[in-house]
Amino acid sequence: MSVTVPRGFRAAGVAAGLKAGGAADIALVVNDGPDAAVAGVFTANRVKAAPVLWSQQVVHGGVVRAVVLNSGGANACTGPAGFQDTHATAEHVAAALTATGHELGAGEVAVCSTGLIGERLPMPALLAGVDAAVRELSPAGGAPAAEAIMTTDTRPKTTVTRGAGWTVGGMAKGAGMLAPALATMLCVLTTDAVAGPEALDAALREACRVTFDRIDSDGCMSTNDTVLLLSSGASGVTPAPGELAAAVTAACHDLAQQLVADAEGATKQIAVEVVGAVGEDDAVEVGRAVARNNLVKTALFGNDPNWGRILAAVGTTAAAFEPDDVDVAVNGVWVCRSGAAAEDRSKVDLSGRDVTIRIDLNAGGAAATVWTNDLSHAYVHENSAYST
Amino acid sequence: MSVTVPRGFRAAGVAAGLKAGGAADIALVVNDGPDAAVAGVFTANRVKAAPVLWSQQVVHGGVVRAVVLNSGGANACTGPAGFQDTHATAEHVAAALTATGHELGAGEVAVCSTGLIGERLPMPALLAGVDAAVRELSPAGGAPAAEAIMTTDTRPKTTVTRGAGWTVGGMAKGAGMLAPALATMLCVLTTDAVAGPEALDAALREACRVTFDRIDSDGCMSTNDTVLLLSSGASGVTPAPGELAAAVTAACHDLAQQLVADAEGATKQIAVEVVGAVGEDDAVEVGRAVARNNLVKTALFGNDPNWGRILAAVGTTAAAFEPDDVDVAVNGVWVCRSGAAAEDRSKVDLSGRDVTIRIDLNAGGAAATVWTNDLSHAYVHENSAYST
Repeated sequence: MSVTVPRGFRAAGVAAGLKAGGAADIALVVNDGPDAAVAGVFTANRVKAAPVLWSQQVVHGGVVRAVVLNSGGANACTGPAGFQDTHATAEHVAAALTATGHELGAGEVAVCSTGLIGERLPMPALLAGVDAAVRELSPAGGAPAAEAIMTTDTRPKTTVTRGAGWTVGGMAKGAGMLAPALATMLCVLTTDAVAGPEALDAALREACRVTFDRIDSDGCMSTNDTVLLLSSGASGVTPAPGELAAAVTAACHDLAQQLVADAEGATKQIAVEVVGAVGEDDAVEVGRAVARNNLVKTALFGNDPNWGRILAAVGTTAAAFEPDDVDVAVNGVWVCRSGAAAEDRSKVDLSGRDVTIRIDLNAGGAAATVWTNDLSHAYVHENSAYST
Repeated sequence: MSVTVPRGFRAAGVAAGLKAGGAADIALVVNDGPDAAVAGVFTANRVKAAPVLWSQQVVHGGVVRAVVLNSGGANACTGPAGFQDTHATAEHVAAALTATGHELGAGEVAVCSTGLIGERLPMPALLAGVDAAVRELSPAGGAPAAEAIMTTDTRPKTTVTRGAGWTVGGMAKGAGMLAPALATMLCVLTTDAVAGPEALDAALREACRVTFDRIDSDGCMSTNDTVLLLSSGASGVTPAPGELAAAVTAACHDLAQQLVADAEGATKQIAVEVVGAVGEDDAVEVGRAVARNNLVKTALFGNDPNWGRILAAVGTTAAAFEPDDVDVAVNGVWVCRSGAAAEDRSKVDLSGRDVTIRIDLNAGGAAATVWTNDLSHAYVHENSAYST
């Protein structure tokens, strides 16, 4: 049900022929109000896709009544013509919805795209798909919408978090290119809580900071990352800011874990827990350096608790620590104490899918966790055999 | 011949049983003078192996009469006991050479180690190997020394550059872990030019900046990187600073290219040429971001000229450029102009081993090249199947 669990939202997912194979590739989410507030977080990549450039402007206005998403093409690196395509898509959505009695302008339609970079979208097929999606809109459309945004994802990602009389729902896609500043993905969150753009923005930024910003599948940052949070106000309940942020964070955490679990070619889901840091920034920097290290990731693919590679990765950071004070545990076994070998590495059980690396810098009281996955033959295969 | 081509040097390479399989694993290089000046560049990793900590101090003194190198163990993350092992090795080398009439102290012996991180070295075997190496020392020992420092290298790397009456020779190892701040490796360069520690240091830093610092195999930085430059002064010729720097740079460039050519699992040797940058730092930042991007590297492994991934990597940098101004050529075909698709990507021939990516930022007049390789199944296999 995903984005249609909160009251005031309808959605649809249809196949428009953008993807080879006939799978669903257009999703539409409509906010029926009474409110239409929005907040958004976008890729930090300076090469931004046309829909990102468009949606940033739309979100800046604070009102979004519909979001259209397509897989089968990123509409990135497509120049001014690509931007015109995005604009035309928003115009088409606005006109089609207005024709059904749901009046809105193109400037209230956010657009998200995902797929191959550098190619124009097949606009006649896409616009016909928009018409079909408008016809299919329903309060039960959250599930097909979540399926329509999948690319190399093996399963749809949805989430629901309930407040006191209000709800947050969400869907996301993104199996590769999970990234530094923002994990690559499209994500639409909805809520029937009463909350204006500023309240939504504060909740969404806090949520992203500790969830999507801390997953790092392959260190690569996308041109299309978009996270949108829409409120309909249909519950009539105005949550306290802390309540809203907590619910949005829970929804983002759930979706972020689903993204890492379904990352391209992953055989391991790895939590890098850094403790004993002087500050949270240090902990995140160390966690990210380890999560992004190809030699650590290949070792874990090979079930090798190679703590030496972990220490070498920690050593590349500017975080406060003394090399002779660092402890490292892999799945609970402290294979490294005070920067040197400790418990026997053969005691480490890496036969399962979940791996926890715990790094104690012994420098302070701050902590953070970064989530990643291993670097496998399947990752190389997926990313060398297909243009994505 | 490598390090023994310049006059005043002897070397040896012997098998001491540190490596399983009986291959040579101890190298010794001795400077017979008349001078014994030295300069060194070491890993920027804050987790430094014991031999790096030792050799930094030795090089600081400006005089090195011998370098002992071992493969089969990195002596990194081994704590105070590991440092004692390095110290004992230097003492043993000094005593053994002094016994042959070549008088020197432990503080004039540099030590380099490479192999698995986190394990102590088998000292009795190592010290017996030092004795054997001292017996084997000869002016023809450059070749066996270059073989003794190999780990996952498939072939030894040596170089010779000739000046007017003087020569620079060198050897290097390092197939994996080629790195950000300094490509992972051990490298010993020798010259019979007359040059003091300051002159050597200036020449070596300039050379490393544009060679070893610009190769990036997998973005991982080692704990053991060491580049040493020794002068014997045996030619009696004092080259101009520019001449010395040029010859050392040529030697380092040659060895750096051999390192990239023999990188673990590589099927492609890739030059990322960045032009049109506002400054050299911008060009290096862009080149490194592309060279280190797993999605670019897997695409090239798959013979896919995926310029969209290249642009996405460029977009992660802080370099001065406008996304709509960037041009990209792959093996001479300008697949991207002004940030969008241009020539047909099917025209790109990626059937060979050499790949040139040319990125024109169209922002200024500076340029730089970063060298790397692809990310292949063999890389994943080598680094998941073996502890290194």
